[in-house]
Amino acid sequence: MPNAILSDVGSVKLSVDKIFSKFLNKGFHIIPAHPIAGTEKSGPEAGFAELFVRRWCVLTPSSNYDKKSLNKIQKLWINLGSKTLIMKPEKHDKILALTSHMPHLISYSIVSSVLNINAKEKSKVIKFSAGGFRDFTRIASSDAIMWKDIFLNNKKNLLKTVKEFEKSLNLIKNLVKTGKSKKLLNIFTKTKQIRKLIEKENQD
Amino acid sequence: MPNAILSDVGSVKLSVDKIFSKFLNKGFHIIPAHPIAGTEKSGPEAGFAELFVRRWCVLTPSSNYDKKSLNKIQKLWINLGSKTLIMKPEKHDKILALTSHMPHLISYSIVSSVLNINAKEKSKVIKFSAGGFRDFTRIASSDAIMWKDIFLNNKKNLLKTVKEFEKSLNLIKNLVKTGKSKKLLNIFTKTKQIRKLIEKENQD
Repeated sequence: MPNAILSDVGSVKLSVDKIFSKFLNKGFHIIPAHPIAGTEKSGPEAGFAELFVRRWCVLTPSSNYDKKSLNKIQKLWINLGSKTLIMKPEKHDKILALTSHMPHLISYSIVSSVLNINAKEKSKVIKFSAGGFRDFTRIASSDAIMWKDIFLNNKKNLLKTVKEFEKSLNLIKNLVKTGKSKKLLNIFTKTKQIRKLIEKENQD
Repeated sequence: MPNAILSDVGSVKLSVDKIFSKFLNKGFHIIPAHPIAGTEKSGPEAGFAELFVRRWCVLTPSSNYDKKSLNKIQKLWINLGSKTLIMKPEKHDKILALTSHMPHLISYSIVSSVLNINAKEKSKVIKFSAGGFRDFTRIASSDAIMWKDIFLNNKKNLLKTVKEFEKSLNLIKNLVKTGKSKKLLNIFTKTKQIRKLIEKENQD
């Protein structure tokens, strides 16, 4: 189909690039997209009018992409309220491993760590979940099939960011263990600054 | 002061119990409390009228406590909209390590894992934080002094729950590494059920 545009909304872009590339020499234009928006809910019923408003949509066009096709897909997302940005699929997958895939894997790990405790204790965990745990259960209630696929399709980047997380965890754990009050305070003050940058970016 | 009641709203209860116990033989009644409610914001300005509504407030009275004093504190919290529950301080600290303290320590670890990346990449992380990361930055923007103190005062329970979390993380990591699709799906389906129990408890 000459001049047809192939696009998608998937969370991993290098694997999509590989699939789409088969259609390159058949006259298709390849403009994959990833709107960074959504909740833990899936399916058409989970949509709402402002879902994409002020959210970034990353476009990962193939090399030698058709500019007209890119403009069309870009306009589509801008009309939905998004801001667009062009990126290499490799770069996209690396950044998203850190900002989305790793945090999801950690959330699943936190929530699954209570699966094996006894019923009486579990009911107390449910009761007192408002102190932090419930936020992770929200993330860890995201679509199981989709997230399993995201993890497996971005395995290398994901495991690398998990390793970085583990380094931070070990550092903080040791500071708690050895009672290093000032150093903990220093780290927790810096993480607060990251939050401020996000609020400034209007992505909160 | 005979018949005066000593209470508090702290997040760790065994250390409070130790401090308060000094006043036991001075005629005080000791009824510590922990309202499991709040946001990442601290201070009087962060309060709002419905803050405690439908939230649990755990009371950890000293042994041989005065029933009248317990009733008074209980009524105070019920009048604020809370549900109350009596617990041993040891039990409270064990459960809260899991439902609150460990999730906070993990959030601080996730956010601090981006502190050392270069400025260009950091700006991309900020941009694309809507995919999961920003939820952790919210938690990791909680009061640094308070959380440092919570971690150090509930060290033993906290480190134990972190160990359990690490077991889950290693399991999930290995399933991703070896591409065990079905087993991942199985875990992620179970974590979703925990979320449903929390929503049923009306603590979401």
